[in-house]
Amino acid sequence: MGHPTPDLPVLAEDNSMLSRRFGREVANYFSGSPLNRISFLRTDYGFLRAAFAHPSASFLLLDNLSPSAKDYANLSYVTRDIVVPLTGEEPFKTSEEEQLKSFNSAITQPVVLFLGIDEKDPDFQYRDYKGKPYFAVDVTPKGTIETKAKSIVDIVKASGVSFVDGRRLLSLKAPDAAIYAEARALLDWNSRNPFCGGCGQRTTSINAGWKRACPPTDLAGVPEGGAPKEREDCPTRHGISNLCFPRTDPTVIMAIVSADGTKILLGRNKRFPPNWFSTLAGFLEPGESIEEAVRRETWEESGVTVGRVVIHSSQPWPFPANLMIGAIGQATPDGETIHLGHDEELTDARWFSFDEVREGIKFGISGLGEPAPAGYREGALRLPPQTAIAHQLILAVLKGYLEAVPKI
Amino acid sequence: MGHPTPDLPVLAEDNSMLSRRFGREVANYFSGSPLNRISFLRTDYGFLRAAFAHPSASFLLLDNLSPSAKDYANLSYVTRDIVVPLTGEEPFKTSEEEQLKSFNSAITQPVVLFLGIDEKDPDFQYRDYKGKPYFAVDVTPKGTIETKAKSIVDIVKASGVSFVDGRRLLSLKAPDAAIYAEARALLDWNSRNPFCGGCGQRTTSINAGWKRACPPTDLAGVPEGGAPKEREDCPTRHGISNLCFPRTDPTVIMAIVSADGTKILLGRNKRFPPNWFSTLAGFLEPGESIEEAVRRETWEESGVTVGRVVIHSSQPWPFPANLMIGAIGQATPDGETIHLGHDEELTDARWFSFDEVREGIKFGISGLGEPAPAGYREGALRLPPQTAIAHQLILAVLKGYLEAVPKI
Repeated sequence: MGHPTPDLPVLAEDNSMLSRRFGREVANYFSGSPLNRISFLRTDYGFLRAAFAHPSASFLLLDNLSPSAKDYANLSYVTRDIVVPLTGEEPFKTSEEEQLKSFNSAITQPVVLFLGIDEKDPDFQYRDYKGKPYFAVDVTPKGTIETKAKSIVDIVKASGVSFVDGRRLLSLKAPDAAIYAEARALLDWNSRNPFCGGCGQRTTSINAGWKRACPPTDLAGVPEGGAPKEREDCPTRHGISNLCFPRTDPTVIMAIVSADGTKILLGRNKRFPPNWFSTLAGFLEPGESIEEAVRRETWEESGVTVGRVVIHSSQPWPFPANLMIGAIGQATPDGETIHLGHDEELTDARWFSFDEVREGIKFGISGLGEPAPAGYREGALRLPPQTAIAHQLILAVLKGYLEAVPKI
Repeated sequence: MGHPTPDLPVLAEDNSMLSRRFGREVANYFSGSPLNRISFLRTDYGFLRAAFAHPSASFLLLDNLSPSAKDYANLSYVTRDIVVPLTGEEPFKTSEEEQLKSFNSAITQPVVLFLGIDEKDPDFQYRDYKGKPYFAVDVTPKGTIETKAKSIVDIVKASGVSFVDGRRLLSLKAPDAAIYAEARALLDWNSRNPFCGGCGQRTTSINAGWKRACPPTDLAGVPEGGAPKEREDCPTRHGISNLCFPRTDPTVIMAIVSADGTKILLGRNKRFPPNWFSTLAGFLEPGESIEEAVRRETWEESGVTVGRVVIHSSQPWPFPANLMIGAIGQATPDGETIHLGHDEELTDARWFSFDEVREGIKFGISGLGEPAPAGYREGALRLPPQTAIAHQLILAVLKGYLEAVPKI
């Protein structure tokens, strides 16, 4: 299957060709995975067993969601022998059914997450599927695996590898960024949901980290060889429940252009450094379309009413589980007055001229916690980096994206 | 604020104008709400109290998620006096803080959901916000409110109102459809999550149905006037946790066109009646963009590899909590071979010529459980109704949507 590699657009003055606006797909940071997830094999324990055992298998380790890395630009993967003291030789030995039967709520289970196969390196084969298997392992020292996990963390650190703050990982190469996003989102979801929202009993990770089941029985406190205890009934055991599957929260993020097409609406909250602004954003709610969410959030945060809305691109954002849906919208002529008093989420929102924003793109780009770059003029607009979809939306506006779309 | 009213496109042969493809927004069924959600006032109990008490307030009732309705084309709303025996005179009397302090896990709490205000009917005013308040109330007879809820259901039924199967509600007017979608999604989320996924203890609904909190104390079993019992610590009480907020599962649904632009890929599963096909669809996973999810799901379900992908429109789908993100994609020239053996979710997938699909749109449209319409030729293609985004995607392809988008 063809996986696109990200092609982060750079600032270009060329805005003449329609194809530059619609023809090309913008693959934002954290998307563009090199892996085929072959998601249908997550329930095939024969496959998981073979993939885990294969010498080419690569393992990303996460300690409290911080990944193993050489530095902020390069992840570090380990081989199977490093993780086996924690996971055992065959973490996928038993079927899903057997795994549920042997559930013991008193034992902490290490999550071994199957990420996918890299088909560019087809050393491993199972049925028709060929590629190097990638896994992520949660090595957070906790519960009954605290000592074993701690030991792995120590061994890996002694070899010169660090566990780095994921929020600062904004200069990874695209394939690593996407692999980290997948790993972080899934391990975070597993660690956030140790209990069942439907019945309150402990859940367990199955299908190589992709499902959390509420087992019908428990071996906790049962003597060796004894029959497991029945647990209370749970609604998630009857039919398919979304509670058992990873959560992704759709979020809208939008560059709003003034009715006359000369200004961009940007806002800031109290966490931002002085002069730092970004596009508005908010969670999409149940029962609304993407365009409705864009209009609602823009009005609630800034008082500005938005007419037409065009979806631009999307970005997985694994802190903890967002899908950022990027849009470009246009204010209505009589709806441009800024009013921050609706939801009071922003401390400021302003219309910036394209010239001010162009200067910001040239001299004011940095990560949120980083200093302004060389050439920055004190007091001028500061903006988020290329890795943020906000940046790409602003660029698209400057490049004339909205002008290429006929008005409604 | 300007809320767009849905304008469901009908089949038209006109495919000449770019503006018909990009300029107009497709508002799918279940979107297009007439309500301003003023979401920031959900935490303002003074507002909620005033809105609930206002004589213009309208209440949609849901019994086991089936809404009160005159028939399948018209919802039925009731006035405040009908719900008060269940909700009490002032369900929003105490602040969020007080509500958490008085939490009693032994008492079933009726969920009173604030939906929004209809600004076309500005009889009620709070601060600068004017409009008729809409609420939904869960009248499912259960727990300690079983008798009171049952009594309301009986009274309402005696007045000629029914509680109808929501999945058959595909001929509502757009405003009612959107109101029902919002109500169903939120009441379903509340009823699915009586326990905390973070700690396993009971949760409670606050902010007029929009948040579920894990209270720090419990009055269950405490004698009148006694101090509430401390509960175990919970991670969701430290900082903001997405576990406390409604869940929406982003889903991709896609009309895939052949490389030469003459055929559409459609599939069927075992639940579909004979000859009934639809577009492929699947859940977007953490760590992938919308385009990546479209390519992955298409390949996993049908074996077809997809090149370019264009996002078309979106549809809230409240069964239980999906955001359908509609896309149109194009197969790569060497990737059109159908193979159902990857995930085995579909029982069939086929390439249909535009002529076959045009006939299906003209004579084969019906709801999933309904008979084929008059004029249907036995054995010909059957397709989903206009209310499904799948239908709109197919229409857009027939109308030349993809041709208007330059190739990558």
